[in-house]
Amino acid sequence: MKNFSILQTFGSNIRSLRRAQNMSQEDLADRSGLDRSYLGSVERGERNISLINILKIANALGISAKELFNDV
Amino acid sequence: MKNFSILQTFGSNIRSLRRAQNMSQEDLADRSGLDRSYLGSVERGERNISLINILKIANALGISAKELFNDV
Repeated sequence: MKNFSILQTFGSNIRSLRRAQNMSQEDLADRSGLDRSYLGSVERGERNISLINILKIANALGISAKELFNDV
Repeated sequence: MKNFSILQTFGSNIRSLRRAQNMSQEDLADRSGLDRSYLGSVERGERNISLINILKIANALGISAKELFNDV
């Protein structure tokens, strides 16, 4: 399994879904309660993010966590 | 957000999908490279599992990670 590219696809999904809502990383940080620079590294696929943080991001984007896993 | 029940739903999805394939926790442990007792606690919703381990489980079940997020 290519973890690296999978984490990148996952992070890139977050970025696309965030941008689709004209939300900045700072907006998403505020809404999710996560740190902006942490979110940046998640979007770049640099983090092995935990389930609870995945759910916080989905919640802040107003979507189901499922949608973050498109093409993952 | 009710993390507790969400983790439980997530764990329960893994259990159902594993049983649907007549796979024991030990089989899933062997295939995923994860510890059997760790998998048990994930299925009970007791773990804040990481993305890489989520992907290992999906891979071992031969399904997309998306499917683990039904009703989550």
